[in-house]
Amino acid sequence: MAALVLAFELAGIFAFAVSGALMAIRKDFDVVGIVLLAGITALGGGVARDVIIGATPPVAFTNLGYFLMPVAAAAVTFFAHPAIERLATAVLVFDAAGLGLFCVTGTVKSLAYGLSPLPAAVLGVVTGVGGGVLRDVLAREIPALVRPDGELYAVPAVAGALTVALLWSHDLRGPWTAAGAAVLIFVFRLVAMARRWHAPTAWRRR
Amino acid sequence: MAALVLAFELAGIFAFAVSGALMAIRKDFDVVGIVLLAGITALGGGVARDVIIGATPPVAFTNLGYFLMPVAAAAVTFFAHPAIERLATAVLVFDAAGLGLFCVTGTVKSLAYGLSPLPAAVLGVVTGVGGGVLRDVLAREIPALVRPDGELYAVPAVAGALTVALLWSHDLRGPWTAAGAAVLIFVFRLVAMARRWHAPTAWRRR
Amino acid sequence: MAALVLAFELAGIFAFAVSGALMAIRKDFDVVGIVLLAGITALGGGVARDVIIGATPPVAFTNLGYFLMPVAAAAVTFFAHPAIERLATAVLVFDAAGLGLFCVTGTVKSLAYGLSPLPAAVLGVVTGVGGGVLRDVLAREIPALVRPDGELYAVPAVAGALTVALLWSHDLRGPWTAAGAAVLIFVFRLVAMARRWHAPTAWRRR
Repeated sequence: MAALVLAFELAGIFAFAVSGALMAIRKDFDVVGIVLLAGITALGGGVARDVIIGATPPVAFTNLGYFLMPVAAAAVTFFAHPAIERLATAVLVFDAAGLGLFCVTGTVKSLAYGLSPLPAAVLGVVTGVGGGVLRDVLAREIPALVRPDGELYAVPAVAGALTVALLWSHDLRGPWTAAGAAVLIFVFRLVAMARRWHAPTAWRRR
Repeated sequence: MAALVLAFELAGIFAFAVSGALMAIRKDFDVVGIVLLAGITALGGGVARDVIIGATPPVAFTNLGYFLMPVAAAAVTFFAHPAIERLATAVLVFDAAGLGLFCVTGTVKSLAYGLSPLPAAVLGVVTGVGGGVLRDVLAREIPALVRPDGELYAVPAVAGALTVALLWSHDLRGPWTAAGAAVLIFVFRLVAMARRWHAPTAWRRR
Repeated sequence: MAALVLAFELAGIFAFAVSGALMAIRKDFDVVGIVLLAGITALGGGVARDVIIGATPPVAFTNLGYFLMPVAAAAVTFFAHPAIERLATAVLVFDAAGLGLFCVTGTVKSLAYGLSPLPAAVLGVVTGVGGGVLRDVLAREIPALVRPDGELYAVPAVAGALTVALLWSHDLRGPWTAAGAAVLIFVFRLVAMARRWHAPTAWRRR
């Protein structure tokens, strides 16, 4: 089970890193910027979570796999980016899987560090979406997370993180609860993309 | 007294959160972005302070009131933003109150964690202005804090934070010192707005 | 020796702070923004490193010299910026010296906090380049670090940080190893500027 989680988490890191590398290439960053943006996109959310809960040094700096994955993703993207752009849907599916896993593992870790369910769920969401926000800030884009023309991204993350936090605090802990919440986020996000669900914006007077 | 401080601090969080939500609406963020920017504006400075002094997890993640306030402010702003824009002056007055309280509580907390007066005052200022800087970075605006067309904002914060740090380190501690410095920042900021005081920019050759 | 390192580190802080203050003046920030950007550019990388390895409060908040140096640099730049712009080369040379020293001291400190060589080297690079990235984000510029029209900056930093991390982990520790790696970064960066070496960007189809 732990090996399965690790495998999925590394897949999520890879997907996030590819999205960072693609953005860097689109913005004409040099190869240093490509690796940098891949690494920050993939690891930024988890580093922020670990710094906030006091779990220093963050796991990204103690587990070599976390560290080499973004470099590998950047290298692959550097050479194969036209093919990857054609595989945009595949990248989005991986990204949704990474979102689900990161939100759940972030929430569970925050609960283990003594946070209440609501703040733990928020930190789970930070883990899942933080890297993408940093990617967009560094590339001088309005964060994709908040653009009204994007399909629901944070809403699935919040729903899944709250679910796992509430189940956990009612003693329904374990791999099945976690896996279920991760699948919930994953499927919710895929359906939102397929059906083009958007979050509302504030109304405006004519 | 502690209840009074908490009430003022929650009012400050509310005012900061409203300013974040208004910015998000102006930038056409969706509802997720509105809540996000409200929360980051209201809590970002305090989280940065707590992470820097090692007080993890930050108080924003352990006190539920800190957490729900920005959500409430975002909800109110979402529905009532045209009225709030007409109340711009009221928002600025609340914001000035929040600035005063955040700078003072940030400085005092940093002193309690063993920092010298000068760094403690700087962290007090970070507590007061940090959220607004994050708001402007995420909304891709030049930080209001440094724009030459804005009225003095950081200068009152620095003056008040230094005052409380120096009095504290000369054993003039207590609620009256803190309240006095907070009022100093509040009044200084209001006068700066009323009289349109600006900080100088560097001279330029013709 | 320790005094020599401190003197060089303060010189590096000064150079980084001048680069931040010049950017702020170019962007028409007011005097508050100039001091702020000088301080963040000079100290941001080290604060990020210390927060990540859990060395809180960061050294920038416990050593008064670290703190006053950016204020002094901002004051000098505020009044003398036309002369300093003419001395652009001198600033770049100081900046290269600061980069070398920051990368090496950042790597060594991270190793002392128990990180493996590769993550320690990355944190060394973060120490050296982090402040400049924060400067560019706050000034709404594409980070100089990743612009394809800039001469190699991160590559010398990575090379030197990896060198010192590997030598250190093979028990070749001491001031000479550190000084050698710092000189390596310094000279590599100067040669890259003189010869206009650039990092490659990803290829594009016609």
